[in-house]
Amino acid sequence: MSKKVAVILSGCGVYDGAEIHESVITLLRLSQRGAQVQCFAPDIPQHHVINHLTGAESAESRNVLVESARIARGQVRDVRELKAADFDALVIPGGFGAAKNLSDFAFKGASCAVQPDVLAATRSFAEAHKPVGLICIAPAMAARIYGAGVHCTIGHDPDTAARLTDMGAEHVDCAVDDIIEDPQRKLVTTPAYMLAKSPAEAASGINKLVDRVLELA
Amino acid sequence: MSKKVAVILSGCGVYDGAEIHESVITLLRLSQRGAQVQCFAPDIPQHHVINHLTGAESAESRNVLVESARIARGQVRDVRELKAADFDALVIPGGFGAAKNLSDFAFKGASCAVQPDVLAATRSFAEAHKPVGLICIAPAMAARIYGAGVHCTIGHDPDTAARLTDMGAEHVDCAVDDIIEDPQRKLVTTPAYMLAKSPAEAASGINKLVDRVLELA
Repeated sequence: MSKKVAVILSGCGVYDGAEIHESVITLLRLSQRGAQVQCFAPDIPQHHVINHLTGAESAESRNVLVESARIARGQVRDVRELKAADFDALVIPGGFGAAKNLSDFAFKGASCAVQPDVLAATRSFAEAHKPVGLICIAPAMAARIYGAGVHCTIGHDPDTAARLTDMGAEHVDCAVDDIIEDPQRKLVTTPAYMLAKSPAEAASGINKLVDRVLELA
Repeated sequence: MSKKVAVILSGCGVYDGAEIHESVITLLRLSQRGAQVQCFAPDIPQHHVINHLTGAESAESRNVLVESARIARGQVRDVRELKAADFDALVIPGGFGAAKNLSDFAFKGASCAVQPDVLAATRSFAEAHKPVGLICIAPAMAARIYGAGVHCTIGHDPDTAARLTDMGAEHVDCAVDDIIEDPQRKLVTTPAYMLAKSPAEAASGINKLVDRVLELA
């Protein structure tokens, strides 16, 4: 039986949405391992739109679910429909979308909140004791989903790690090609583009994360 | 010495730009094989903007270079700066952007034209006898770049293949996990999402194409 895996996207583009390489590498590895995948995203406006060529903020408004559909080739559902009972595992790629749309960590740091629909969906996996993979900056949501004491990594940036510690997480330094596992919570994390200098480096950790999440499922 | 490879993107999203999976799988394989990659795109408005969730055309206007920067994590240059002398090879992923922004094949079929800046850049590779990989629907531009008699594939859709034949190309049917090579012109093509049902299927042909293009470089 192939495993059923949900993927939560946060838009389409590293500076205002889901990191595209991380998202596609995740979908590719899941596909290569024979998993059945369904993408989800919150049906909310993006926090903002960034011109990825110049870095400047644009006056446009874009919707997270609609832009996520670009990565998902149209096959994406509202995250309010996501329930752990329907899936074996969950993976959330990074990009600033995880810290600007799925949560407000980019703006509020340790006092951040996770978007309510995303929090409900992710907590349903935690409560069902089903494996979850969080990539890049997405582990900034770990303490809000699992509570204090959760082990996770965002690589080894001391300032970002300190914000996770302030929220009650146990941050563990991690190389780009490795993963950190919290066995009690079945949470797997990897730094990806928090550290990666190339798609190949990002894939080295993400592939390991996807493989481990599928093993735990 | 690592090979220097140019990649031309056509926006960001299968229905109005570069197919995102094909683009990232291309960049990933090039990275895993140690190539130095530089992305390019034309600095022109997209033909249109499609809501990828609903399929409806949107009233928005987006720029091909700016949206391509999402896939390239900001590292993309105007295709007018692309000259074969600076690179060992060129790869162009598919998506409707190749048939709506890089050319107007989606609207004009066999009487299509290639966008002038893209035509100049791609012809510079053909004239320098440097290898080129065209993925998915991008081979619809092959006859315009190389002239009549060029061998290429878009998979096995008879209507699309007939349009390529009308332009003077020699279309060769091809499975999703395979490539067609025109040895005289050093042109390599693969169907990818013209046939693929999953990211893994798309990668099976794209990885083979990238590997062959690098061998020829």
